[in-house]
Amino acid sequence: MNLTTYPRRVRLIDVGPRDGLQNEKQPVPTAVKVELVHRLQAAGLREIEVTSYVSPKWVPQMADNHAVMQGIERRAGVRYSVLTPNMKGLEAALQDRPDEIVVFGAASEAFSQRNINCSIAESIERFAPVVEAARNAGIAVRGAMSCTVGCPFEGDIPPERVGMLARLMKDIGVQRVDVADTIGVGTPLKVQRAIEAVLAHYDIDHVSGHFHDTYGQALANTLAALQMGVWNFQCSVAGLGGCPYAPGATGNVATEDVVYLLHGLGIDTGIDLLALAETGAWISEQLGRPTGSRAGRALLARRARATSAGEQGA
Amino acid sequence: MNLTTYPRRVRLIDVGPRDGLQNEKQPVPTAVKVELVHRLQAAGLREIEVTSYVSPKWVPQMADNHAVMQGIERRAGVRYSVLTPNMKGLEAALQDRPDEIVVFGAASEAFSQRNINCSIAESIERFAPVVEAARNAGIAVRGAMSCTVGCPFEGDIPPERVGMLARLMKDIGVQRVDVADTIGVGTPLKVQRAIEAVLAHYDIDHVSGHFHDTYGQALANTLAALQMGVWNFQCSVAGLGGCPYAPGATGNVATEDVVYLLHGLGIDTGIDLLALAETGAWISEQLGRPTGSRAGRALLARRARATSAGEQGA
Repeated sequence: MNLTTYPRRVRLIDVGPRDGLQNEKQPVPTAVKVELVHRLQAAGLREIEVTSYVSPKWVPQMADNHAVMQGIERRAGVRYSVLTPNMKGLEAALQDRPDEIVVFGAASEAFSQRNINCSIAESIERFAPVVEAARNAGIAVRGAMSCTVGCPFEGDIPPERVGMLARLMKDIGVQRVDVADTIGVGTPLKVQRAIEAVLAHYDIDHVSGHFHDTYGQALANTLAALQMGVWNFQCSVAGLGGCPYAPGATGNVATEDVVYLLHGLGIDTGIDLLALAETGAWISEQLGRPTGSRAGRALLARRARATSAGEQGA
Repeated sequence: MNLTTYPRRVRLIDVGPRDGLQNEKQPVPTAVKVELVHRLQAAGLREIEVTSYVSPKWVPQMADNHAVMQGIERRAGVRYSVLTPNMKGLEAALQDRPDEIVVFGAASEAFSQRNINCSIAESIERFAPVVEAARNAGIAVRGAMSCTVGCPFEGDIPPERVGMLARLMKDIGVQRVDVADTIGVGTPLKVQRAIEAVLAHYDIDHVSGHFHDTYGQALANTLAALQMGVWNFQCSVAGLGGCPYAPGATGNVATEDVVYLLHGLGIDTGIDLLALAETGAWISEQLGRPTGSRAGRALLARRARATSAGEQGA
């Protein structure tokens, strides 16, 4: 019956330390950020988006980028990536030797204007020398493409616009791209159309899915992307990172929920789900809020019941 | 690219008034229950699980079953179903003329023993005369099959056991069955295997999916079931109905989230999603808790922003 094939292995990029924490109002201590990275790599994550090199005027939470990068005990086989919006950011990042830098563009003109204050074309022009300098320094380059399904200002985004952005990314030397549903409005067929447009310019190994769970659709979209052969995904432990356009709403899909799905499908991730759930519970406690991960919460509740039953039995 | 076909139309059964409310500790006023049914049918729901006829000693929240059923202004074309665990329950239900009664069995022996205090075979024996009497009275019969993927006591449930339960249901005259992942541990391939086992005994039009969102997997499982041709699903407005085995955890998948998925796929449900989201917000307010629906919360937040922007612009 099941003619659907799934990838045998999936690589997850946890963006919690950067995308997840950047909008936190209260400053998160550098030591907590470093410990988060350590816990994630101990749980088996092999790609972690650590911090960004943007002006602390705009993103004060990331002002300790050097301290975080230098505080991490790096593990062999783990890729540490950072956001660099411009040459100044790249130059600062180079001091810390990330494995990969991330540049970001939007598939929506209105979002590009409001988010980074320039047109899509201008953003690409601005990134071109950053990409070139990074690659000359032997550092990999990833392109985050936001609003590939919908935009809070423009509504639905046609797949052609996503394809156009992917082509521009390819032209300036970006090696792989994220197809991000930034506001979480996507559903499976729409997400597949956006990915399909990107596949005209990048092969499947260089496309990752980045789905927000704002409308609860992230895992359905993940399943749809897996069915196309996508095997790289971004996610955020405990679902860190709310959606700035919907107060109280969920943003990034929780890494725990994605891992639960993948393991249930028999797909290898190399991740210890219980250790990951504990990491999610730990960082949520640090931030003084409940976890955004349903699987994490349910798994830890199940373990607590088992422990309590064992104690009663003893 | 998209070789996947989806049903053109889906019928949703909202179980909120019964399955959703039955575990509420505080008594919910009868008038609120009646209004919930009225709001659901006004939003376009055409199947509603209204109440149950069980001993008020066991489920005090459903003690007002007669009052609720008699308080509803019935609409033509809407199917009102009720739970009847035994002949006494059926006799009580007959006074209120439901369109459909529901009997329930588990695919797990341990769960059957703990939940209804008898073996699976005994539960079927007990239901046989109930089913017969209902059908003789011209009332349809649905069979809810719990723990079809996993059981809190036994762990994984093999598909053969689900098939066996479906066969027993068929043998006593149950006309259609729900494949329920009662504790929400299922993932797409496991859910598909359970459904496949049921399809040996019931055709696709008589099988519905009932997925809990405890681990966040319900919509991925819904997508997988849609891909098999399943076009009937149970869900609960605002995600009413927690999981008794995981305090604080999500139980039933929220109707709003399912409708958002279906409409995004271009599938007709006949439901007005915004009216449904308002219903979810309303009942959550009545119960004094946040909604369990991500789509509901995001949609209402988006509307609030649009209204506020409109007022600023005016």
